[in-house]
Amino acid sequence: MIFDSDLLSNLSIKKKRLLARVISIVESGNETSIEILKKLYNKTGKAFRIGITGPPGAGKSTITNQITKHFLSLGKTVAIIAVDPTSPFSGGALLGDRVRMNDIGMLDNVYIRSIATRGSLGGLSQKAIDIADVLDAAEFDYIIFETVGVGQSELDIAKIAHTTIVTLVPESGDAIQAMKAGLMEIADLFVINKCDRPESSKAVSSLQSSLHLRYFSNLDWQPPILKTSAISNIGIAELVKSIEDHRKFCANNESYLKSRIEYTKERIITIVSELVKKEIFTDSLAISNYTLEEVINGNLSPYILAEQILKNYKYNFINNNNSNNPIN
Amino acid sequence: MIFDSDLLSNLSIKKKRLLARVISIVESGNETSIEILKKLYNKTGKAFRIGITGPPGAGKSTITNQITKHFLSLGKTVAIIAVDPTSPFSGGALLGDRVRMNDIGMLDNVYIRSIATRGSLGGLSQKAIDIADVLDAAEFDYIIFETVGVGQSELDIAKIAHTTIVTLVPESGDAIQAMKAGLMEIADLFVINKCDRPESSKAVSSLQSSLHLRYFSNLDWQPPILKTSAISNIGIAELVKSIEDHRKFCANNESYLKSRIEYTKERIITIVSELVKKEIFTDSLAISNYTLEEVINGNLSPYILAEQILKNYKYNFINNNNSNNPIN
Repeated sequence: MIFDSDLLSNLSIKKKRLLARVISIVESGNETSIEILKKLYNKTGKAFRIGITGPPGAGKSTITNQITKHFLSLGKTVAIIAVDPTSPFSGGALLGDRVRMNDIGMLDNVYIRSIATRGSLGGLSQKAIDIADVLDAAEFDYIIFETVGVGQSELDIAKIAHTTIVTLVPESGDAIQAMKAGLMEIADLFVINKCDRPESSKAVSSLQSSLHLRYFSNLDWQPPILKTSAISNIGIAELVKSIEDHRKFCANNESYLKSRIEYTKERIITIVSELVKKEIFTDSLAISNYTLEEVINGNLSPYILAEQILKNYKYNFINNNNSNNPIN
Repeated sequence: MIFDSDLLSNLSIKKKRLLARVISIVESGNETSIEILKKLYNKTGKAFRIGITGPPGAGKSTITNQITKHFLSLGKTVAIIAVDPTSPFSGGALLGDRVRMNDIGMLDNVYIRSIATRGSLGGLSQKAIDIADVLDAAEFDYIIFETVGVGQSELDIAKIAHTTIVTLVPESGDAIQAMKAGLMEIADLFVINKCDRPESSKAVSSLQSSLHLRYFSNLDWQPPILKTSAISNIGIAELVKSIEDHRKFCANNESYLKSRIEYTKERIITIVSELVKKEIFTDSLAISNYTLEEVINGNLSPYILAEQILKNYKYNFINNNNSNNPIN
């Protein structure tokens, strides 16, 4: 992997091919990737990060498309990270959304990147967050995470996003499904999309009553419920205004800072654990198939095996460092 | 935490309160939990594990309910693990599903357990899999994982399940949404539920054409598409038959064994990494808020901080073990 330090100082929206290359390295999660992330970090912290999530079919891509166009019209630059917990097979190539998004993807001030779970090591959300750091360093004004589905990755990304938008469609039961999926707690804004449908007002009031049941932690922010018809660009200006309201609210809120500290701690813990995994399991033969079959057959507890592996790791470490000095 | 070795030899479906207690310990993930899992492991490997997943509202709980009743009528015992990536607030208490499931939950040969993401350390899916080991050791014939949503946890659970059922409703676009969420690759069986709806046949043929686009890896198993109306018990007997067909197929399939080895390796890696996390971050003050704020403000890379923490961990370890001997 070729990696040139000068590359990073040139990182900008104007050099999409360079950007794509650096992001690919970061997505791979190799050692160069870690070097890049370490060097870039002092350039980050300026981009505003928006998460858009909700159940499949709620129009997340269309909303992403429309608010992107809105930001562009204000002279801003926008990066979109589309997170698909999708297949090693299709690589997501069959997605209608990606085709639709390409219509803004061709514009100068937009950069779109899809990521998928290629393999299992290193969580999907961690990759998305690392890539956001690269885009932040490349001085994008807005970074939008579009997440498909309602799993752990979405919850993780909600933590890193400054503003998380939960989109629902006005179908009966959608609110309760959202609650089940933990979406109620992560929403800073709710959007009832496809608001031209007749059930729309009912959906808003049903969501409102659900929200009243919710315990609002220490935050004073009451998530507004907005109605959009993203495909007809209805309600988008109001949505953007709400995003800005939330941004202003967070700038001075102590509970918000607390939750960011908590999240950052989690992120550090995840990174440490990934580093250890890499050190222990670099040799792909570290666990033999024979041993694994013993686990499968119920003869060897995975926990006993894990403890043995960790012991060996430490033992190797001591053997290679027979001194009392701190490591540098 | 009281932990009596004798408890474990008594673990059975007949002692639901004991079972609940042991599972609570395992769910907590503390040290006793690891001891329990190590001791139980040699009793596992007999239960057949079924995953039921799909987008919200596809009727997963109703299908779970019906196939459970079917297994009960054959004199089998069934454990259900309902996985909700849900809130620390509601704890899932508002779920209609849980109420519905309670109707079988009162029966002698059924045990139902809901788990949620309480906190972030230790993945949800890992907990579900550990709990399944407890239920396996308690000699349940079937363990059903019902997962809400389409995230990483669902994909992990699909790997541990012997047979994974993906449920969809006959709405247009559902198949493409499922593909986006990576559900196509994990399905051993497809169920189009609510098959009394008019779009039902169209949904089956649309799913069939999507499946033709799929690369089937090395497996010779072609996932069948079944139509059910779970609420009216239509198609359930056929579904159960398909589960048994898949079970027989897997018993003699080499690719299937390979994928289990691969999964088991991932599980070991996850456990090792959790053990390391515990050792490093037991002291909740291990990272100061000041340091975390430095990260938030873009002054300190999370990767640099993570490397420092790992160095300290190793340094402490060397300091406490000034010998060349392997650790026992």
